[in-house]
Amino acid sequence: MVRIILVEPEGPENLGMIARAMANMGHKELYVVSPACDILSSPSLKYALHARGILENAIIVSALEDALLDCDISFALTRRQGQYRQPDVYLPELGNILTGLEARKLGFIFGRERNGLLAEEVMLCDMILTIPSSSDYPSLNLAQAVMLVLYELMRISFNSMRKSQKPRLDEQIEKTSISVKKVLRELGYYKGLGDDKVDFIVRKAVSRASANRKAAVRIENLFSHILSRIKSTEDV
Amino acid sequence: MVRIILVEPEGPENLGMIARAMANMGHKELYVVSPACDILSSPSLKYALHARGILENAIIVSALEDALLDCDISFALTRRQGQYRQPDVYLPELGNILTGLEARKLGFIFGRERNGLLAEEVMLCDMILTIPSSSDYPSLNLAQAVMLVLYELMRISFNSMRKSQKPRLDEQIEKTSISVKKVLRELGYYKGLGDDKVDFIVRKAVSRASANRKAAVRIENLFSHILSRIKSTEDV
Repeated sequence: MVRIILVEPEGPENLGMIARAMANMGHKELYVVSPACDILSSPSLKYALHARGILENAIIVSALEDALLDCDISFALTRRQGQYRQPDVYLPELGNILTGLEARKLGFIFGRERNGLLAEEVMLCDMILTIPSSSDYPSLNLAQAVMLVLYELMRISFNSMRKSQKPRLDEQIEKTSISVKKVLRELGYYKGLGDDKVDFIVRKAVSRASANRKAAVRIENLFSHILSRIKSTEDV
Repeated sequence: MVRIILVEPEGPENLGMIARAMANMGHKELYVVSPACDILSSPSLKYALHARGILENAIIVSALEDALLDCDISFALTRRQGQYRQPDVYLPELGNILTGLEARKLGFIFGRERNGLLAEEVMLCDMILTIPSSSDYPSLNLAQAVMLVLYELMRISFNSMRKSQKPRLDEQIEKTSISVKKVLRELGYYKGLGDDKVDFIVRKAVSRASANRKAAVRIENLFSHILSRIKSTEDV
């Protein structure tokens, strides 16, 4: 379970965009610590679009401690490193930290638009989470930062889902490679090359060309057609 | 090289946020096909903040073809799948497609806020790129979608950078594990367990606890202190 915690946000448009980003990525638990704007104002609702329910159900608290109370692990989003005692994690590496912790309540804490989180707020959290960004312009819009964290969380479960589908893709790449090799053989395309080398080259090319199983099937079908066309030409 | 191509965007705030997102992630090449708003209006510049240069240097063209002309590979962002002939890729898998293509010019094409890209525009692109999202509310804000693509691109190079740093982390985890094992041995904590098993357990725990090299060093120092404290107590 994921909880997004905003500390003193002041832009109603950001609140709306955050609600929409949460709905896009399948989350709904929003805590707002002492908001500096009306979270249900019309710019908020305009940017939330179909996610206004998340704003309506947001829990407003007056202290960050109250929002953290039942979080098992809390991540303070900040890019000012080195001044805190907590270990720091870069967002693309979040998966390493979360391995084996699925059932826990994770809190992600975002600071004010202008000056982020105070040192004492960061100290209340378990870890520091940093979004890598350009040193020329490192400061991200608040709603963009929230979206990136939610995307990374989705990415972690997406990857494990896709890994479990992998065997079907591998099988199809094997089938597709056979179909490609038949055409190459028919064309006399790899005389002198050992079978192992041809296997390797073809499999690599098919694999690169196949974003997913469906694409691999399409390539297989294409080469089956090519094969039957070549053979029918020979028959003439 | 990355080029962001927007087709008929109508929200000046989105344009501003996109410019900022590009600067945040270290990119600057923006093409806008027939913008439906003034890309240098005051809401645009307000949201671009320090990235107004990207808007000022944006190239305006009247047809998508002109923006695609010198792109080696073009990705159409759309979530309506199955109706196109191009292979489709999910954003978290973009790295698989890009392996070995670093030197190329990559174009990412984003459609209108309300109704995305037309089928004939998608057909002009080489691949379809889809951002996985909740089926309850799949439609992302345009600027959020651009940011996610730029983040994924950064993530790909970030991961290869971090992999090359790995040996230093591994070395430190080894040193830290030795320091932890000394304390455990001193406390008589693993009598009866084989050395191999202890090595495995400690290394795994240290590895999980160490988000980076600095964290591993901190743990090493902590356990060195514990060890000297335990030994000094024994001496009394």
